[in-house]
Amino acid sequence: MDTFETGLTRAAVWRGDRIDIVEMPLPAPGRGEIVVRIRLATVCGSDLHTVSGRRQSPCPSVLGHEAVGEVVAVGAGAPARVGDRVVWSVTVACGECDRCGRGITAKCRRVRKVGHESFDSDWTLSGGYATHIVLPSGTAVVRVPEHLGDAVAAPAACATATVMAAVERAGDMSGRRVLIGGAGMLGTTAAAVCTDRGAHAMIVDPDRVRLGQAVSFGALLDDGEMVDAVLDFTGAASFIRESLPRLAISGALVLAGSVAPGPLLEVDPEQIVRRWWTITGIHNYEPRHLREAVAFLGRTVDRHPWSELVTDPLPLEQIETAVRSAPGRKLRVAVAP
Amino acid sequence: MDTFETGLTRAAVWRGDRIDIVEMPLPAPGRGEIVVRIRLATVCGSDLHTVSGRRQSPCPSVLGHEAVGEVVAVGAGAPARVGDRVVWSVTVACGECDRCGRGITAKCRRVRKVGHESFDSDWTLSGGYATHIVLPSGTAVVRVPEHLGDAVAAPAACATATVMAAVERAGDMSGRRVLIGGAGMLGTTAAAVCTDRGAHAMIVDPDRVRLGQAVSFGALLDDGEMVDAVLDFTGAASFIRESLPRLAISGALVLAGSVAPGPLLEVDPEQIVRRWWTITGIHNYEPRHLREAVAFLGRTVDRHPWSELVTDPLPLEQIETAVRSAPGRKLRVAVAP
Repeated sequence: MDTFETGLTRAAVWRGDRIDIVEMPLPAPGRGEIVVRIRLATVCGSDLHTVSGRRQSPCPSVLGHEAVGEVVAVGAGAPARVGDRVVWSVTVACGECDRCGRGITAKCRRVRKVGHESFDSDWTLSGGYATHIVLPSGTAVVRVPEHLGDAVAAPAACATATVMAAVERAGDMSGRRVLIGGAGMLGTTAAAVCTDRGAHAMIVDPDRVRLGQAVSFGALLDDGEMVDAVLDFTGAASFIRESLPRLAISGALVLAGSVAPGPLLEVDPEQIVRRWWTITGIHNYEPRHLREAVAFLGRTVDRHPWSELVTDPLPLEQIETAVRSAPGRKLRVAVAP
Repeated sequence: MDTFETGLTRAAVWRGDRIDIVEMPLPAPGRGEIVVRIRLATVCGSDLHTVSGRRQSPCPSVLGHEAVGEVVAVGAGAPARVGDRVVWSVTVACGECDRCGRGITAKCRRVRKVGHESFDSDWTLSGGYATHIVLPSGTAVVRVPEHLGDAVAAPAACATATVMAAVERAGDMSGRRVLIGGAGMLGTTAAAVCTDRGAHAMIVDPDRVRLGQAVSFGALLDDGEMVDAVLDFTGAASFIRESLPRLAISGALVLAGSVAPGPLLEVDPEQIVRRWWTITGIHNYEPRHLREAVAFLGRTVDRHPWSELVTDPLPLEQIETAVRSAPGRKLRVAVAP
């Protein structure tokens, strides 16, 4: 073990009704483990849902699964070096089960998730709302290019990588007409990704300010005509129901926003058959998508106003304020421990 | 033009309430066209539905889209030689529209279909229930290996090729658990294809005789456990509804039997997202699937009792008898003009 850090860490522990800042000794990394000093965390919408009670999550726990940090200590065999600036996957895979063997590591049978583990488990420091996080063996870790700022890099580990997985499921983008539901962080990022891949990417959102912002990421306004793919990041039954009939022959509806119980979707099997439709879903992503996310942000950092999507950072002590919806046209609140 | 035939042909013309045998001059092939003497046609279930009124089709017309024949005349530039024993695609593509350009020729914007065109159109001899058929430019034509008998080869052009397209949509089969709905011609063929590709292929059908026959094509009986893929050839809402919850993580439901109006299917978007499910459909197929079908039948002709699936041939004059359900464990009635 090699470390430049003193022996204490502070973590924001969510207790169901409040969030406490807890100080504790910084653990030494075990075999394959990495200790990272958090430089910046951004608050994903799913954490807002956890805190507001709309979503179940282990409690008490350290939330936060979108962050960028610097490696300060590594155990033997860990896939990083001290000093590396990195982002890391949400899911931690065993690498040995049948699903890992088939390349579905996000659905590993023994999956653990950054920012989703009990503070009382043997993985105490699992979240990004802390001065440090411990990354177990099985976490995908990707170095961040120097020119990519923390505020642009942090969302890679959830928003950007999930978008990469969703767009992959929609298939070839070149010359395709794509309808994106929701101009939040994922939808806006998807507009940039689809446009970059040669699609005619249209976006819908009831918020005209966000809609306008998405235009600066390459999005076009919906023309109401047929589309080759629909990417849903809203989870809204109305959007899904209304966009389905607009799918052209061989079109794909990719669901990514339906992560809470909601109404059933009625589909006509004959339309699926005769129109060669595909309805598919994605939740989390594979390590390749995180690598693609970082590469994509690195390549387009000057093309779109990525850093404008994130607020100025709040200190960790203001985490209660941070886990509320981002203000105005900001799509992410940042926390700098 | 090169021909060995005399100048007359007989065709079974379906008139909505009856089928007439019509004698007419054998046309000379135009540029890119092929005239084929039908050796054997098999009766696909969709023709039964057309004749019984459950399915709309141009009328009058020469039905029949599963057949094998010998090329007797070719126009300039046609993709076959006189004397070739061949099967041919159901769909005839323009090769010029956007869908053809994207490799979705079965959904060509100017698609014409073997056995589905009006007898009063400029493509009079479009069906297999005749002594001859004319194949326009844009038909996929595949030579049949010598050792493959007519009764085994004839279903390639609809049943076998559609199965190839459906299995392709389900993805990699090696080591996968697959549930096949329906032990008719397509389901039984699918059992053979999935087994050949390394799957644990189970089949369900209310008819225990057909179920037993499917076992001789590699099918296993359903164990009721989770599966990686469901291939539906029944179009039955109950089978589709009941099999969906059995899909494992990253599983695919491939619909191929829902070719008539039926009840809507209710799906839970959250399950699609969290389980990475894919629901997709297929109708007809691409030229590569017809080539794969012929190759597969050629490779497995001695492994499974393919020829037992087809009745002894009836003469064209008994076409009214032929367009009824196949008797007993036979899955196809054959017609030899």
